[in-house]
Amino acid sequence: MSHNTFGHLFRFTTWGESHGPAIGCVVDGCPPGLSLRPEDIQIYLDQRKPGSSKFVTQRKEDDKVRILSGVFEDETTDGPRTTGTPISLMIDNTDQRSRDYADIKDRYRPGHADLTYDAKYGFRDYRGGGRSSARETACRVAAGAIARKILGPDITIRAALIQIGPKMIDGDNWDWDEVSNNPFFSPDKHMVAHWADYLGEVRKSGNSVGAIVEVHASGVPAGWGAPVYAKLDTEIASALMSINAAKGVEIGAGFASASFSGSENADEITMQDGKHKFLSNHAGGILGGISNGDTIVARMAIKPTSSILTPVRSVTRDGEEIEISTKGRHDPCVGIRAVPIAEAMLACVLADQKLRHRGQVG
Amino acid sequence: MSHNTFGHLFRFTTWGESHGPAIGCVVDGCPPGLSLRPEDIQIYLDQRKPGSSKFVTQRKEDDKVRILSGVFEDETTDGPRTTGTPISLMIDNTDQRSRDYADIKDRYRPGHADLTYDAKYGFRDYRGGGRSSARETACRVAAGAIARKILGPDITIRAALIQIGPKMIDGDNWDWDEVSNNPFFSPDKHMVAHWADYLGEVRKSGNSVGAIVEVHASGVPAGWGAPVYAKLDTEIASALMSINAAKGVEIGAGFASASFSGSENADEITMQDGKHKFLSNHAGGILGGISNGDTIVARMAIKPTSSILTPVRSVTRDGEEIEISTKGRHDPCVGIRAVPIAEAMLACVLADQKLRHRGQVG
Amino acid sequence: MSHNTFGHLFRFTTWGESHGPAIGCVVDGCPPGLSLRPEDIQIYLDQRKPGSSKFVTQRKEDDKVRILSGVFEDETTDGPRTTGTPISLMIDNTDQRSRDYADIKDRYRPGHADLTYDAKYGFRDYRGGGRSSARETACRVAAGAIARKILGPDITIRAALIQIGPKMIDGDNWDWDEVSNNPFFSPDKHMVAHWADYLGEVRKSGNSVGAIVEVHASGVPAGWGAPVYAKLDTEIASALMSINAAKGVEIGAGFASASFSGSENADEITMQDGKHKFLSNHAGGILGGISNGDTIVARMAIKPTSSILTPVRSVTRDGEEIEISTKGRHDPCVGIRAVPIAEAMLACVLADQKLRHRGQVG
Amino acid sequence: MSHNTFGHLFRFTTWGESHGPAIGCVVDGCPPGLSLRPEDIQIYLDQRKPGSSKFVTQRKEDDKVRILSGVFEDETTDGPRTTGTPISLMIDNTDQRSRDYADIKDRYRPGHADLTYDAKYGFRDYRGGGRSSARETACRVAAGAIARKILGPDITIRAALIQIGPKMIDGDNWDWDEVSNNPFFSPDKHMVAHWADYLGEVRKSGNSVGAIVEVHASGVPAGWGAPVYAKLDTEIASALMSINAAKGVEIGAGFASASFSGSENADEITMQDGKHKFLSNHAGGILGGISNGDTIVARMAIKPTSSILTPVRSVTRDGEEIEISTKGRHDPCVGIRAVPIAEAMLACVLADQKLRHRGQVG
Repeated sequence: MSHNTFGHLFRFTTWGESHGPAIGCVVDGCPPGLSLRPEDIQIYLDQRKPGSSKFVTQRKEDDKVRILSGVFEDETTDGPRTTGTPISLMIDNTDQRSRDYADIKDRYRPGHADLTYDAKYGFRDYRGGGRSSARETACRVAAGAIARKILGPDITIRAALIQIGPKMIDGDNWDWDEVSNNPFFSPDKHMVAHWADYLGEVRKSGNSVGAIVEVHASGVPAGWGAPVYAKLDTEIASALMSINAAKGVEIGAGFASASFSGSENADEITMQDGKHKFLSNHAGGILGGISNGDTIVARMAIKPTSSILTPVRSVTRDGEEIEISTKGRHDPCVGIRAVPIAEAMLACVLADQKLRHRGQVG
Repeated sequence: MSHNTFGHLFRFTTWGESHGPAIGCVVDGCPPGLSLRPEDIQIYLDQRKPGSSKFVTQRKEDDKVRILSGVFEDETTDGPRTTGTPISLMIDNTDQRSRDYADIKDRYRPGHADLTYDAKYGFRDYRGGGRSSARETACRVAAGAIARKILGPDITIRAALIQIGPKMIDGDNWDWDEVSNNPFFSPDKHMVAHWADYLGEVRKSGNSVGAIVEVHASGVPAGWGAPVYAKLDTEIASALMSINAAKGVEIGAGFASASFSGSENADEITMQDGKHKFLSNHAGGILGGISNGDTIVARMAIKPTSSILTPVRSVTRDGEEIEISTKGRHDPCVGIRAVPIAEAMLACVLADQKLRHRGQVG
Repeated sequence: MSHNTFGHLFRFTTWGESHGPAIGCVVDGCPPGLSLRPEDIQIYLDQRKPGSSKFVTQRKEDDKVRILSGVFEDETTDGPRTTGTPISLMIDNTDQRSRDYADIKDRYRPGHADLTYDAKYGFRDYRGGGRSSARETACRVAAGAIARKILGPDITIRAALIQIGPKMIDGDNWDWDEVSNNPFFSPDKHMVAHWADYLGEVRKSGNSVGAIVEVHASGVPAGWGAPVYAKLDTEIASALMSINAAKGVEIGAGFASASFSGSENADEITMQDGKHKFLSNHAGGILGGISNGDTIVARMAIKPTSSILTPVRSVTRDGEEIEISTKGRHDPCVGIRAVPIAEAMLACVLADQKLRHRGQVG
Repeated sequence: MSHNTFGHLFRFTTWGESHGPAIGCVVDGCPPGLSLRPEDIQIYLDQRKPGSSKFVTQRKEDDKVRILSGVFEDETTDGPRTTGTPISLMIDNTDQRSRDYADIKDRYRPGHADLTYDAKYGFRDYRGGGRSSARETACRVAAGAIARKILGPDITIRAALIQIGPKMIDGDNWDWDEVSNNPFFSPDKHMVAHWADYLGEVRKSGNSVGAIVEVHASGVPAGWGAPVYAKLDTEIASALMSINAAKGVEIGAGFASASFSGSENADEITMQDGKHKFLSNHAGGILGGISNGDTIVARMAIKPTSSILTPVRSVTRDGEEIEISTKGRHDPCVGIRAVPIAEAMLACVLADQKLRHRGQVG
C-alpha cells in the first residue's frame, strides 16, 4: 500500500474529490474470465450510498458505477467477463451543492484534515473535504465487489455494527439475517429501536457519536497470508485503519486478550470429519500471520463524525482564534456506512492474499 | 510492506530463523552522511534482548550486531558514516540448544504458527518456531536505531507498558523517567511491585499473560503522512500489528472514541507562541492520515505467550488428537520485550514518511 | 513498474482498450502547487495523435484530455494547481468503427499480441488490439506533460527520429529546430524529402518499416539515479522498452561501445567555469546509474508495424493454418508517433528519480 | 525494481561493497520445498568468479557462498529444502588488498561512478569502487541459481559471448556445447584463438575493449509476462541494463528490426504436432510483452572496462585538472564475466514472471 494504491497482485488505485466531477478507481491484476456486470458492483454501492435513511447524510448521490475498461463481451462469452487488464470504474458526483465554502475555506474544523492538508501541501481543495472526504470509500466498495468475484462463492464476507456510542449489542442475539433488516446493520434485532431513539436524539442535538464495526470472513482456507510484514492480520489492520475515521483495529479477541492468561486464550484443537477444528476463536482465524481455516474476525473503532453543530474552539489558516460549528449534511454516526466499507476492504485483502499465495505456493 | 520487507523509501528486509546460524536485515534507502556505529544500534538491542530479568525468557543471546556494509570511514570522516547504500546488519544466534524438538515437530501448539506454516508451505523449520519466532524482532530494533538517526534529535520516540494482564497503570502516575528504572518498562513506579508479584505468580504456575504497550512520538512536524492508503495511522497500524503476538492497535483515543460524542471527541485548537496548539489529543496526533504537530500516540494489545505448561487439547500433523504443554524457555509476558520493538517500528514508519514527504513536497 | 503502473514516488496507472468508451490514467505522487491546465497536456497529445499526416494512421481521434481530479482553483490561486492528490485524466475514444472484427477475432496476426493474450488470459478483447493497442500510449504522453512540470523549465526533453527503415539521418545536419517542421520529427531537413518518398512507397505497397528514435534530456543535474537496480539507465531502458513495438534500447554510445577500446570510450573531463565538463558523451550522461550532469542520450529501435497487406502464413485460435493480411487504418511506420512517447517516458523517469533523490538525500 | 531490490513476487535484495567484509543477498518469495544446497549455487558462482583465466581480473576470490536462512533439513526431507521464507546468502570478501587508495580517493576516473556517487551522496566508499563494483554481480548469480530451481528442468537458460571489440562470431558456427570449452564463453570454436590473440594484445597494451552477450531461454511456455509496464521484454531490458557496464539491450532482431519491412519482420506461424510453431524468431520469443512459446532471445552491449593504463584527462574532487591512468587488477573485457550474470538475470525475470502469472491466472 502506498500513495493512493491498495494491494499487491490484486490492487486498486482510487482518485477523486468530494466535489469534483467524479470519483473512480482502477482495479488492476484481476484474474481473467470472471463474470462482471455493473449491477454486481452496484448492489454493494447501494448499501453504502448516502441518503438511504434519516440516520445517514442526506446528500443525494445515486452512486451509479460505470465500467470503462477491462471487461469484454461477445457472442462467445456469456455476458461481460474480465479480461485480466485494468478495470476502470467511475462514479459521477451529482449533488455537489454550489454553496458557499467560506466557512471552512480558511477555518480549520477540529477533527478534520483541514489543518493537516494545508500543513502538508500548502493549500487544499476545501470543497466538502476534497480528497479527505469519505466519498472516496465508494471506490473501495466497488473494488471490493470485484474482490468477492475472485474469492468465489465459498468465501462469505459480512460485517455488522455492534456498538453505537456506548450502546453495545448483546452478542447472544447475533443473527446475520437481521443485518439487512434495519438501517444500522445491527445483527441484534432487539437493539434496533434503542439505537434509533438514541441516534435520533444525537442527530437532533447536532452532535454525533462513534461506533464499532465487526467483520467476518468465513470459508477462508488455512494457509493464506505470510510471515512477518505481509501477515494477514497486518494487512487487515492496514486496510481497516485506512478507512476514514477509524481509530482502532483488533483481530479476534483483540484488546481483551491483553487481560487473558495463556490458558484462557488458547484455542484448543480437535479433529472433525478428518479436518482440524478449533474449539474457540480468540485468534480471529489467524496464527503467525496466516489463516488457520477458522472464521477471520476483525473489529474497528470509528470515531464520532467531526462535523457537529456544537461550537468548538479552533483557529484560522492565518492564526486567528475562532469558534466553529459545522452546518450541512452529515452522518450523525459514520460508523453505519462503514459497515459495507469494512466488508469491501477485507475482501480486497483476501483477494490479494489469495493471488499472492497462489503465486508463491501454486 | 510485502514479503519480508518493511517500508518504501526507507526500508528494511529481515531474514533468519530462531535456530539458524544468524538473523539479520538489510536496511535500504538510508540517507548518506549519518554517523553510525554498532553501539548506536546495540543500545536498543540490549533493551530487547532475552535474559535481562527473571520476567523474560532465559535464553541467553548477546545479540551483538555487526554492520557489514553501507558505512564508510576514512580520515576525512569523523567516524563511520552511512554512504546511502544498503546497510547489512547481522546478529549471530549463539544459544540454540541442541535439544530434541520431537515434541513440537509433528504436534501443533495452540496459538503458535505450527499448523498454519504447515498448511501454507507443506513443511516448516520447527526449531524454536523457525521464522515465526519473535527472534526476528531483533532486526526491527536494529533497523529502528537507524531510523532514529534519520529522524534526528528533535523527535523523541518512547514506549511504555501500561497493562499486564488485567492490571493497568494509573495514568496520573505517568513518569517517563521511571520506564528505564524497572524490568517492565512501567511509567508508573507504584505498579512495579504489583506487577512483579503478579507476574511471578503467573510464571511459577507455568502460565502466561497478555499486555498493552503505549508508544509516543513527540516533535513530529505537522504534514507527514498522506491521504488514503499511505495514511500515517494506517502505516502505524500495519507496523505494530506485524509484531509477533499483536492482536490490536489503536491511535489516540482508539476504541474509547467509539463511545464518545463528537463534542467530547473534538480536540479544540488555540494559538500559542504563534503556532497552533491542541487542547486535547484524542486524535493521537494524526488527522486525515497526516501528522498534526501534536504527539503521536498509539497502543497495541499483545496476547499472552502461547507456550504454557498447562496442558491443552490439540492435534498432530497426522490428525491425531493429543494433549500438549510447552516446556522450555519462554517469556511469561511477551508484552514486556515488545516495548522496544514498538518504539523501533514507530521510528521506521516515521523515517520512511519523512523521506516520502520530502520527496513529494520538497 | 508492475502491472499497469509506472514509477515509484511519481507514478501513473493507465487503463483502457482501443475500442472501449475511453482510455485514461491516474497520476499519483505529483508535488502540490504546480500550475496545470488541460492545454498543458493537450499540446503534447496533439503531437502524438493519429491523422496528423498521411504518414500515420488515419484513425480520427481528437484525443481531448479531461482532468477529473487532483487540481484545484479558487480566487487565491492563479489558475488551477495540483493539490498533491491523484490526477485522473480521461480521453474519450470517438472513432471506434463498428466494423466487423471477424477477420482477427479467431485469427492470429503475426507480430501482434493476439496469440499471446489468448495464451495468457484464455480470451481477449480483439477490437483494434484491445489493451495491446498503441492507443494506450496517449496516456503516457499525458503523464509526461505533468512530469515536465515537475522537472521545471531548466530541464529540456526532446526526441527526434533518426532512422526510417535503412535510411539514417546525417548527424552533422542535426538541428533541433527542424524537428517540428516536418511530419517525421526529423532533425535533418535534408532527409525529409527522402523519407517522404520512401515511406510513401512503403505505404502504397501495403507494407511497413521500422525506425530509430533518439531522445535527449539536457539540464539534468549530476546525482539523480541510484546504484544497482534503480539505475537511471535501467529505468530508461525499462521505460522505453515498454513502448509498443520497441525492440531495443541503448544509452549513449550503446551497442557501438562494444567495438570501442577503453581509451576510445573514455569521456575525458575538464573544468569549465568552476564546474566539471565532459569532452565527449559516450556515457550518455550516466555513470554508475547516476546522472553525471551531461545530456542524457538514449535511443530505441521500433519494429515495423505488424499490420500489413502482404499475406503471411499464420494459424487460427483453433489451430487451422491460414494466410492473413491486415486491412484497416495503420501507421506505415509507428516509429514516427513514438517520438513524443519517448519524450514522455524519459520525462516520467526523470520526474520520479528527482523526487526519489530528494527523498533520500534532501 | 527499486533501490537494491530486484523483482516482485520472487525478489532479491543485494548488499555489500567491493572491499567490505562480505557481500550478500536476501532472496525472498521463493516457493517452498525446492531442494537447495550451497553447491547448487556455487556451480554458477564459479563461472563468474575472478582469476579463472588470464583474460579476467587476477583478483583472487573463492566466492564461497553460505546459506544462512530459508532452508531446512531433517530426517523427513531428502536434503535441505527451501521453506518459503527469506534465503540469506553471504560471500566473504577475502582478497581486499590493503593498498593505498590515494590515487582514486580524490580523483575521478572517467567512465567510473566516482564523480556521480560524490555528486549524489556527498562522499563515497572509494575502495575498489565500493558499491559500484561489479563484485555485486556475484549476488545476482547466486539469486539466479535459485531462480533456475523455480523454473525447473524444462526451461534452459544459457548465454554466450558473440562479440569482443569489433570481432563478431560467425552465427553459422554456433554450438552451445563449445561455450564451456573456452575462457570466453564463445559458441564459435573458430573464434577462440582470434579472441585470445586480440584480447592478449589489448591486455598487454593496458587497454580494454567492449563486448556483446547473447542470452537465450528455451522451454518458456506461451503466456508469461503482462501488458504495458510489466512486459516481459521490459523487465528483461531492465534486468540486463542494470548490469555494470551495460549500455544497450535488444530483444530478438532488436536494432536490426528498424531496417526491416513489415513483411521481412513477420514471424510466420504454422502448426506442428498440434501446437503453433514460428518459422522465424525476429520477435525474440515475445509478443505484446508476453512469451509466445518460442525461444526468448536478448542481447546486451557491454562497454570497455573503464580502468585502463592509458592516461586520460580528468579532474579531482576539488576541481583540479589532472591526468589519470588506472593500475590494478582489472578485466580487459568485462563482457566475458557478464555471460553468467546475463543468464542469472534472465532466470530471475522469468522466475518472477512465472510466479506472477500463476498468481493472476492460476
